[in-house]
Amino acid sequence: MAGWSGRIIYDAKGDTMSGCTSYYVGIDVGGTSVKMGLFAEGGELLGKASVLTPPLTDEAGFNAVTAGIDQLLSEAALDVASVAAVGLAVPCPVPASGEITLAANITIAPAELKAALEAHCSAAVVRYVNDANAAAMGELWRGSAQGRTSMVMVTIGTGLGGGVVVNGDVIDGAFGAGGEIGHMCVNPDETRTCGCGLKGCLEQYASASGVVSNYLKACEDHGVEPRELAGSSDSRTVFQACREGDAQALEAMEVMTDYLARGLTIISAVVDPEIYILGGGASASSDVFLDTLRAKFAAHALKVSAGTPIEVATLGNDAGIIGAAYVALRAAGE
Amino acid sequence: MAGWSGRIIYDAKGDTMSGCTSYYVGIDVGGTSVKMGLFAEGGELLGKASVLTPPLTDEAGFNAVTAGIDQLLSEAALDVASVAAVGLAVPCPVPASGEITLAANITIAPAELKAALEAHCSAAVVRYVNDANAAAMGELWRGSAQGRTSMVMVTIGTGLGGGVVVNGDVIDGAFGAGGEIGHMCVNPDETRTCGCGLKGCLEQYASASGVVSNYLKACEDHGVEPRELAGSSDSRTVFQACREGDAQALEAMEVMTDYLARGLTIISAVVDPEIYILGGGASASSDVFLDTLRAKFAAHALKVSAGTPIEVATLGNDAGIIGAAYVALRAAGE
Repeated sequence: MAGWSGRIIYDAKGDTMSGCTSYYVGIDVGGTSVKMGLFAEGGELLGKASVLTPPLTDEAGFNAVTAGIDQLLSEAALDVASVAAVGLAVPCPVPASGEITLAANITIAPAELKAALEAHCSAAVVRYVNDANAAAMGELWRGSAQGRTSMVMVTIGTGLGGGVVVNGDVIDGAFGAGGEIGHMCVNPDETRTCGCGLKGCLEQYASASGVVSNYLKACEDHGVEPRELAGSSDSRTVFQACREGDAQALEAMEVMTDYLARGLTIISAVVDPEIYILGGGASASSDVFLDTLRAKFAAHALKVSAGTPIEVATLGNDAGIIGAAYVALRAAGE
Repeated sequence: MAGWSGRIIYDAKGDTMSGCTSYYVGIDVGGTSVKMGLFAEGGELLGKASVLTPPLTDEAGFNAVTAGIDQLLSEAALDVASVAAVGLAVPCPVPASGEITLAANITIAPAELKAALEAHCSAAVVRYVNDANAAAMGELWRGSAQGRTSMVMVTIGTGLGGGVVVNGDVIDGAFGAGGEIGHMCVNPDETRTCGCGLKGCLEQYASASGVVSNYLKACEDHGVEPRELAGSSDSRTVFQACREGDAQALEAMEVMTDYLARGLTIISAVVDPEIYILGGGASASSDVFLDTLRAKFAAHALKVSAGTPIEVATLGNDAGIIGAAYVALRAAGE
C-alpha cells in the first residue's frame, strides 16, 4: 500500500459477474477524495473505493491510484490484464484532444498520471473526461437517461456544471468548454463577477450558491433578517424555508428558476436534447422548484421543444465513476 | 418535362469526374426556388439547376423534382441507378427521426415527396435536413470549415439561422430545433415579439432585419431621419452607411455585434466549436462588423474558448445543395 496518502475505503460491493472478459475502471478525481469503481461491460458495478486526494504530481500520488485499482481487482479476483479501459473524471476543462492545459481546481500532472496508468494497466485505453461530462455519461449508461441518444445533464452543486450528450457521446468541446453551461451569460446587466471572471453567468443565480445569493438579496431588498445558513452554498435551508412558505426564499426560488429555465431554452435552441436531467446536491430539493422550472421552460421554449422532459438524476455521487468508466469503454471500442 | 411548374435553369457546370461509381444529389427547397446539384463522392459538383418552387404536395410537384434529377443525370451521361443518396434541405425543423411535423414556410407533403424520390431513385437513401444545418455541412465538406470536426455556422439573412456540427455530424435535435440559434433569448426585457412568438431572440438584433431595426431605433432615439431603405431587411444600406461613418448606423452595428458576440459566447459554453463561420447575405458586409464582433467575443468568452476563430463562409448560395448532398452521403455510408 506504499504511496497511499489515505486509507482506501470500500463503501460498497456491487453486482457479481460471470462470462465477462473485459473490465473498466472509472475514477473520479475530486478536490477532497478520489473515488474509484470497477465495472463489467454492461455497466455492472463490481466494487468501489475512495481515498483522500493526494497531490497527483509524483510517483507517490500515481501509486495511490494504481494501488486502488489493484485492490479493486484483487477483491474481484481479476487480473490487471483484464482492464480494457480506465476513465478519469477531473474537475477541469478536457479539450477534444484529451490534453489538459488548465487545471485550476486540483494539483495534477495530467500527462504523467496518464502515462503511469498506461504503464500499470498495459492493456487499457486511458481517457480523461470533465467531471460534469462524466456525470452526464453515467446517467446515460446506468441512470435516468438510459436509452437516450441525446440529453443534457445540469449538475446543481456549489457551482453549476453541465454535460451535453449528442449521438451518444458527450461533447468535450474543441477547447474543453463543452457543457460549461454554468458560464452562459444570462444577465448582461450583472455587476458582480462570477468565479470564472465573467459577469451574469447562469451559475450566479441557479447553483446552490446562487440560490443563497438570491435569498440574501431578497432579504436585503425587503429589509428582512435572513435565516441562519450553514454557509454560502446552503441552498438546503433556503429550500426548506420555501416549503414553509417564506416569501424571500420563494423569491429566491423564482429567480433561480427564471434563469435556469432561460438557460435550458437557450440550450434547446442550440442542441435540442431529448431530455434534461438535474443532478447535484440541490436536485434533492427538486420538490420545491421542479414544477415551476418545467412551467417556465414550456412557456419560453421554441414550440417544437417545449415538451422536452426535465427529470431528476438517479445515480447521486456515483455518476462520476460510472460515467468515467463508460467514456473509457466507448473510447476502447473506437 | 411534364409536371415542371417552371423552366429548369442550368446556371453552372462544374468539375468532371472519372472512376466514380456513386453520385449524390443535393436539393435545396426554398420559398422561391428549388436548387439542385449533382455531386461525385469527393464533393465535386457535376452540374446544377434551379426552378421556381412548385407546391410539393402532389404528383406534378414531385415530378418537377424527379425531372430535375433526370436532367442533371442526362447532362452528365449518368444513369439514375448511380445515385446513392438524395438530400433535401428544407426551411423547417427536421427532428432526429427525419420525420417533419411542422413546415410553416413552404407547401410540402414531406413523407409523400420522400416516397416519390425513393421510388424514382430506387438505389438511393433519401434524407431531409434543415436548410441552415445543410449550409453548415456544405461549408464543412467544401467550404471554409474543411478539415474541421466541429463548427457552428451562423447564417445572417432576413432571419438568423444556425448549424451546429459536432464530431462531423450536424445536430438536428430531438425535436428539430438543433441550431435554431436565432431564437436563443438574449434579451429577456424585450417587449417586441419575434416571428417565432417569443421575445428577445438573437434574430431580433443580429439578422439583416435586426440590423435595420437597430438602425431605425437609433435614428428615432436621436431624432434623425433614417436613410432610404430598400425594405425591412436592407442591412446592406445600413452597413454602407457605417462605412461612411454614419453615427446611427454604427450604433446599429454595435447593438448587432453586442448580441451576436453574446450569443456566440453562450454557444461556446454549450458545444465549444473549433470555429464559427458566418454566412448569409449580411456576411458580405463583414468588413464592417467582423473585427468588432471578434473583439467582443474574445472579451466575453470563457478563457479557454476566447481564441475561437470567427471566419466568413465561402460557398454562398451553393452551401445548401452541397450540404444536403453531404448529409445524404453520410447517411448512405452509415
